[in-house]
Amino acid sequence: MAVLRELFRILILLNPKSKPEMNKHMKNIIVITGASSGFGALTARALAKAGHTVYASIRETKGRNAPQVEEAKKFAKDNNVDLRTIELDVASQASADAAIQKIIADNKRLDVVIHNAGHMVFGPAEAFTPEQLAELYDVNVLSTQRVNRAALPQLRKQRRGLVVWVSSSSSAGGTPPYLAPYFAAKAGMDALAVVYARELTRWGIETTIIVPGAFTGGTNHFAHAGSPADKARAAEYEAGPYKGFADDVLKGFASIVPPDANVEGVADAIVKVVETPFGKRPFRVHYDPTQDGAEVVNAVSDRVRAELLRRIGLTDVLTPRSLAVELQSAAWSSHVEGESNRRT
Amino acid sequence: MAVLRELFRILILLNPKSKPEMNKHMKNIIVITGASSGFGALTARALAKAGHTVYASIRETKGRNAPQVEEAKKFAKDNNVDLRTIELDVASQASADAAIQKIIADNKRLDVVIHNAGHMVFGPAEAFTPEQLAELYDVNVLSTQRVNRAALPQLRKQRRGLVVWVSSSSSAGGTPPYLAPYFAAKAGMDALAVVYARELTRWGIETTIIVPGAFTGGTNHFAHAGSPADKARAAEYEAGPYKGFADDVLKGFASIVPPDANVEGVADAIVKVVETPFGKRPFRVHYDPTQDGAEVVNAVSDRVRAELLRRIGLTDVLTPRSLAVELQSAAWSSHVEGESNRRT
Repeated sequence: MAVLRELFRILILLNPKSKPEMNKHMKNIIVITGASSGFGALTARALAKAGHTVYASIRETKGRNAPQVEEAKKFAKDNNVDLRTIELDVASQASADAAIQKIIADNKRLDVVIHNAGHMVFGPAEAFTPEQLAELYDVNVLSTQRVNRAALPQLRKQRRGLVVWVSSSSSAGGTPPYLAPYFAAKAGMDALAVVYARELTRWGIETTIIVPGAFTGGTNHFAHAGSPADKARAAEYEAGPYKGFADDVLKGFASIVPPDANVEGVADAIVKVVETPFGKRPFRVHYDPTQDGAEVVNAVSDRVRAELLRRIGLTDVLTPRSLAVELQSAAWSSHVEGESNRRT
Repeated sequence: MAVLRELFRILILLNPKSKPEMNKHMKNIIVITGASSGFGALTARALAKAGHTVYASIRETKGRNAPQVEEAKKFAKDNNVDLRTIELDVASQASADAAIQKIIADNKRLDVVIHNAGHMVFGPAEAFTPEQLAELYDVNVLSTQRVNRAALPQLRKQRRGLVVWVSSSSSAGGTPPYLAPYFAAKAGMDALAVVYARELTRWGIETTIIVPGAFTGGTNHFAHAGSPADKARAAEYEAGPYKGFADDVLKGFASIVPPDANVEGVADAIVKVVETPFGKRPFRVHYDPTQDGAEVVNAVSDRVRAELLRRIGLTDVLTPRSLAVELQSAAWSSHVEGESNRRT
């Protein structure tokens, strides 16, 4: 046993990943979903510029998103960076599996998974069909489950990795009306991220939740928002006491987004997280120019959640376990055992 | 116009609903979902005992839940209360529509809708299929949307009503691992409730969110919890660093539920909310014997959410508009108008 442990110790010392301070200079293999536009496209470019190999995953790469694929290629060439696109429709497990398998086959590893794909709808909650709510949960939440089920076996095998979730300040902070199905889905995504984090730490996988506030410009989020399928029901709101309400919400919302709100701040925040040494990455990073209160609420909520894990005796799942630490600790036990054996 | 307003004022004075202090003695027509067991069955009985007409909605009333229907009948007879059962499968819009239509046909009104139906699963997040996450969102969240779409047109027509959501402390407080798909769904439900509340106030519909903590006994919630469909994936967790984790979570969780945690507290809280005068009902009521922190977090989050509505100029949607107040205010404007006309 002692020989085996010694061997492990040597392997660890030879493994560059066991030196967290080297993270900044490490080239990570990264996949990001929903990278055809918005945060996704910006983040993919920013990470590639920082020297990483980035798979900007996009659906319909040969169809309606072909121009986005060309743009990414041009960006990679112009900037001499390793930005690649890959077909990945988050609505399909087969598509997620194929994309992740290709990335692993090409690189023999996968370091970072970024869940960014999402879609928004706008209108009175009552006017959305249950099917529309289901679709929205699919694209915002089930999407992450499909990619996790495709990618986590590899990250667990490596005993090292990072999962980044692009959540929404709405899941803790201010929630204007007429965005209910979207906010419900994002709250679900945030809750899933929180629990997943604790179920991955012992595998050596770290989690960071990015919490962007509202941006009414700079992404297609509002422009491409879906609308209620039940037009008659929506019309009842407009004919009743909620006349003009959609405009009131949009105008009010736009009025609190500062003119200098910069969507690139989200991309920069993700680059910083990726380049932070393993084990030192923040659980959450807020980037919310409107200051809707999410940062205040999450500070409290993440704290009481940590407290609960301590109360139920599961403190260890709060921090990602490092294979190096795990084995060094085993070696230390063996050393102590040896010492104590000598004493008796 | 002035004549019309005066007429309205007289109608309001004749309408017993315009006297909020009478609420306590009013017999409400109430429907509650998922009332075959747990919180639902207890709440239905407690409300019936308090003198209300309660429709305990249950699926498969002629199938596997026939014994629960018989029990409810017996309870109604033994206690001489108006507890009725009604077939309602929250997974079906047609079923929700039929049930709500029958209630309205029989009573010419519907005062209170209580969203209680729910289901839980337990196991590593990664081992649940996306289809299982979708099912869980369906029973916990889409269920409420179906019932809302069936019931809200009537409540809006009445310009009066109460919607009660049985949420979960997990959506703000401590979240033990191995419950991710359930917590994601309940967080979605809570977010939906928060936004719906603001889209219903102007119709004169009030919202209360009940936030129960964890009860490991007294309901079938844990006993009937579903398990991951991907057994092989679950086995990887058990064979790896999460060996014995399911037991650790359950034991740890059970250890913090006080022995006197009483599920009937939730039913009592709902009775109290129903009997509170219109416009005075609390937005949230916590009943959490384990004190997992949800009460602390929601206090902050509901506050920053109210602040956001004020910032975007929509303060009025924070409180339910009373038809009486609305018309009295119209009468008052007319009076002021008259005064100011006299002055010029």
